[in-house]
Amino acid sequence: MESAETKRSTIDRMNDVFRRIRERGDDGVWISTVDEADLRARAATVPADLPLSGLTFAVKDNIDVAGMATTAACPDFAYLPRDTAPVVRRLLDAGALLVGKTNLDQFATGLTGARSPYGTPESVFGGGLISGGSSSGSAVAVAAGLVDFALGTDTAGSGRVPAALNGIVGVKPTRGLLSTLGVVPACRSLDCVSIFAPTVGRAAAVLRVARGLADGDPWGRTGSRPAPDTLRLATARSLDFFGDAGQEKAFAAGLDRLPGERSEIDIAPLLEAGDLLYRGPWVAERLADLGVFLAEHPDSVLPVTRQVLESGRRFTAVDAWRGVHRLRELQAWTDRLWDTVDVLVLPTIGTTYTHDEIAEDPIGRNLNLGRYTQFANLLDLAAVTIPNGCTADGRPASLTLLGPAFSDDTLVGLAELITNGNDLMTIAVVGLHLSGEPRNHELTERRATLLGATTTAPCYRLYRLPSGVPGLVRDDSGAAIDLELWQLPAAEVGGLLAGIAAPLSLGRIALADGTEATGFLCEAYAVGAAQDITAGGGWRAHRSASERQDA
Amino acid sequence: MESAETKRSTIDRMNDVFRRIRERGDDGVWISTVDEADLRARAATVPADLPLSGLTFAVKDNIDVAGMATTAACPDFAYLPRDTAPVVRRLLDAGALLVGKTNLDQFATGLTGARSPYGTPESVFGGGLISGGSSSGSAVAVAAGLVDFALGTDTAGSGRVPAALNGIVGVKPTRGLLSTLGVVPACRSLDCVSIFAPTVGRAAAVLRVARGLADGDPWGRTGSRPAPDTLRLATARSLDFFGDAGQEKAFAAGLDRLPGERSEIDIAPLLEAGDLLYRGPWVAERLADLGVFLAEHPDSVLPVTRQVLESGRRFTAVDAWRGVHRLRELQAWTDRLWDTVDVLVLPTIGTTYTHDEIAEDPIGRNLNLGRYTQFANLLDLAAVTIPNGCTADGRPASLTLLGPAFSDDTLVGLAELITNGNDLMTIAVVGLHLSGEPRNHELTERRATLLGATTTAPCYRLYRLPSGVPGLVRDDSGAAIDLELWQLPAAEVGGLLAGIAAPLSLGRIALADGTEATGFLCEAYAVGAAQDITAGGGWRAHRSASERQDA
Repeated sequence: MESAETKRSTIDRMNDVFRRIRERGDDGVWISTVDEADLRARAATVPADLPLSGLTFAVKDNIDVAGMATTAACPDFAYLPRDTAPVVRRLLDAGALLVGKTNLDQFATGLTGARSPYGTPESVFGGGLISGGSSSGSAVAVAAGLVDFALGTDTAGSGRVPAALNGIVGVKPTRGLLSTLGVVPACRSLDCVSIFAPTVGRAAAVLRVARGLADGDPWGRTGSRPAPDTLRLATARSLDFFGDAGQEKAFAAGLDRLPGERSEIDIAPLLEAGDLLYRGPWVAERLADLGVFLAEHPDSVLPVTRQVLESGRRFTAVDAWRGVHRLRELQAWTDRLWDTVDVLVLPTIGTTYTHDEIAEDPIGRNLNLGRYTQFANLLDLAAVTIPNGCTADGRPASLTLLGPAFSDDTLVGLAELITNGNDLMTIAVVGLHLSGEPRNHELTERRATLLGATTTAPCYRLYRLPSGVPGLVRDDSGAAIDLELWQLPAAEVGGLLAGIAAPLSLGRIALADGTEATGFLCEAYAVGAAQDITAGGGWRAHRSASERQDA
Repeated sequence: MESAETKRSTIDRMNDVFRRIRERGDDGVWISTVDEADLRARAATVPADLPLSGLTFAVKDNIDVAGMATTAACPDFAYLPRDTAPVVRRLLDAGALLVGKTNLDQFATGLTGARSPYGTPESVFGGGLISGGSSSGSAVAVAAGLVDFALGTDTAGSGRVPAALNGIVGVKPTRGLLSTLGVVPACRSLDCVSIFAPTVGRAAAVLRVARGLADGDPWGRTGSRPAPDTLRLATARSLDFFGDAGQEKAFAAGLDRLPGERSEIDIAPLLEAGDLLYRGPWVAERLADLGVFLAEHPDSVLPVTRQVLESGRRFTAVDAWRGVHRLRELQAWTDRLWDTVDVLVLPTIGTTYTHDEIAEDPIGRNLNLGRYTQFANLLDLAAVTIPNGCTADGRPASLTLLGPAFSDDTLVGLAELITNGNDLMTIAVVGLHLSGEPRNHELTERRATLLGATTTAPCYRLYRLPSGVPGLVRDDSGAAIDLELWQLPAAEVGGLLAGIAAPLSLGRIALADGTEATGFLCEAYAVGAAQDITAGGGWRAHRSASERQDA
């Protein structure tokens, strides 16, 4: 009986995934999705005791999944791969459920999410904010709660910049730790498969499963380094936030929340290494794999992507070797850095951009986005990107922990420590905490972000209590009541609850889509003398009506 | 007293070094030598208890020694370095005595020894045989006994090919194990400092001292891997000896002398990797360092060297990255090889060439020389080259032991096992063992090679015994007697001695240059009835005179 119920609930969850995807409409997140019936069937049969059992995930569409086209966001480039990439195979074997393939900056070249013929995803923070890229779709799919985690790739920062712009966790593992077999190469010697998740814990669970060598992958590596007893943290002596005081302030606040002492270092050698990627001979590495396609199909490639790729043609082999030699010197500097520092903490991005701002300067601002990410793979670093609250004007802030190759577990451990209680939680609000209402600041002060508006399941009544405060009570004869869903760090929920007086409580509310969320309820004892305002459909409707009446 | 005597003997040894260098005349071995008085002074003061105390050595002239010009065999390129290369510094600090800087193929580009404006060293095997290169002078300096060991460099095989052509040991350590700081770059990402020595034991002693990181050397690495309990040897399934049946036979015989079983593998991936060096984009790496000098001083560079270097200009950065990607696949193949094989045994060179043969086809035959050496640094292998006797027509044979990075100690250990008793010994012969004489085959059968002709100190008498055999007896009233010096494995000396009847013996003979050698003597009791033939000056002179008389 229980098994049948569990199965039904799993199938319901799968239905919800597709319903929510459909509801978002043309959001530019997906390039293809799996067949719904197939996913339901797979969900119903996957054993419950596997490490990732029942977790849904998305895969960036430059990673092969057998039976689905790989487009790399270039329709004319699309091919039907024979084999599933080994890293995806590992997740499937661990019980995870693949929902679909996600949008990206064409050929994974770009950090904005604005370079795809499959649409332009917007950050879940809204306001025209770019999603970041190149793993744009995967990041938004996770941030919008469409899937439980997603795979991206990361050469210059494609697994970190979109995490920063969507307020989620991004793990860019040590080069080679996750197999890149079956991944469309950007810079083959630097490419990584990366992980997006809403929490560090979940990203860590995925990392544990995803890592490992694959037969025939010449870039694969294994290894780990023991975690130091005491972490020595460092940050940069000076940083360029491109005039964004909000990000600067958020980063400073984030540093203050870190445990222990910090030293400050000059990161000029890191920045110089990063410049080799797009301004130096590594941009020619992109042509080593894509050059033939580009020469044969110049009009199949977006103009901005073509411009970036073609810039590699100006470099000679002699330039490439000079770059290799200079990088080796910078690598030696970086290797010595780890004698005195265990983890380097930097902002993931110096500032955020809207789509309009990117359109004004698509290449220059793309470079700005990569300033603190693009050196990592050149210098063989591991990186974990974590949310760092918001700016005062509601834009996401983020920081990245960087360490030497194979420090992945140390970085993930520190990220868990920092975000302990920073796991995000969704809160449904129906009354005075709604946007624009008097107690909304109790949410925004706690770094909560508005996920969207929906209604309860049609089984609630809303009352106006004698104190003037609204109260929601479950009642099968009731209706659907308007609500907003806000996401905030789980650790902040206690403070929110402490500010609430009886008869209000935080409990579980059934939502219109069949899921549940934690939200504000009213104890039934208190509604005897209250006004039933259910008919209006919500607190705002009631207030508007009252105001009209009062006027 | 003893100390004063030791000192005098050390100073005598230093005088001998320079006397022998002068006696060889214009042999193309040296580009510069240290001041004789300085060396004597240093020899007299160096502590006796250091690991390399009193051992003389030479340094290839692309390695910096403060106070001596570094030419890289290009006079117009010459500069006076401020600092001594750290690897040389380590040897000096260990008590070794630097004699001078040696000739090389210009810019260490070439494997023949025929590409230098400072002359063209000949192999100690004579007959117009090339010395091999690019570390031509260092190899000949060791093989001719001018120094106790020497440093070379090895990018494509420059530390192995000249060892092969001079019948000595060449150690090409794992890339980065010996610092390349202060070395004129050939291919910076591949260059190694290498060691030449007459025996494996001495090379091992130098390797122990020379290895180690240097501050500011971005290419330095440390490491070692434990020696396996049982060595799994492999050789190539098929090899190209370029039609040289003598080398093919010598290699087969060398394999038969190896301990244990051997498997056979297809080395096509290794050969393909090797082709990247001169026929692929790595040739452009040479221009990354030398390109500016070459552009500004085209006429300062030898035509053949210029032609090789300029061939790098045809490669683009895209070619370079495609090469990097292909190499990574070949590296992955090679890494898997070491799962089933510990040491790969190959001929060092497939055939030998004379200077005339190289002049006919300087680039093509240079490539042939590198066929079994040039992949090693690309694929991050360690290599030890050891003598493997001679061909029937008296040319040197050699084999090379190859293993993964940091297998240096394993390779040296195996080389010591193989050459155990293969330490070379010099034998002076005055009679029937001279070349062309009836018992000369007793030497050549034992892999002996003719080092040259000289005379005894002027204190010997030569007799013709009643049996017709010549006999040498020390007598202060005697004269200088013609002799030949032959070098053969010490382990073969026992067999040689076993074939000698009284009154002959093997003892110590004082030579014209003041040194001693083991050689054939006659017991004084036996010369009472013998004919004193001292006046002729030697056995051949006596025989010629007898034959004239008989005629």
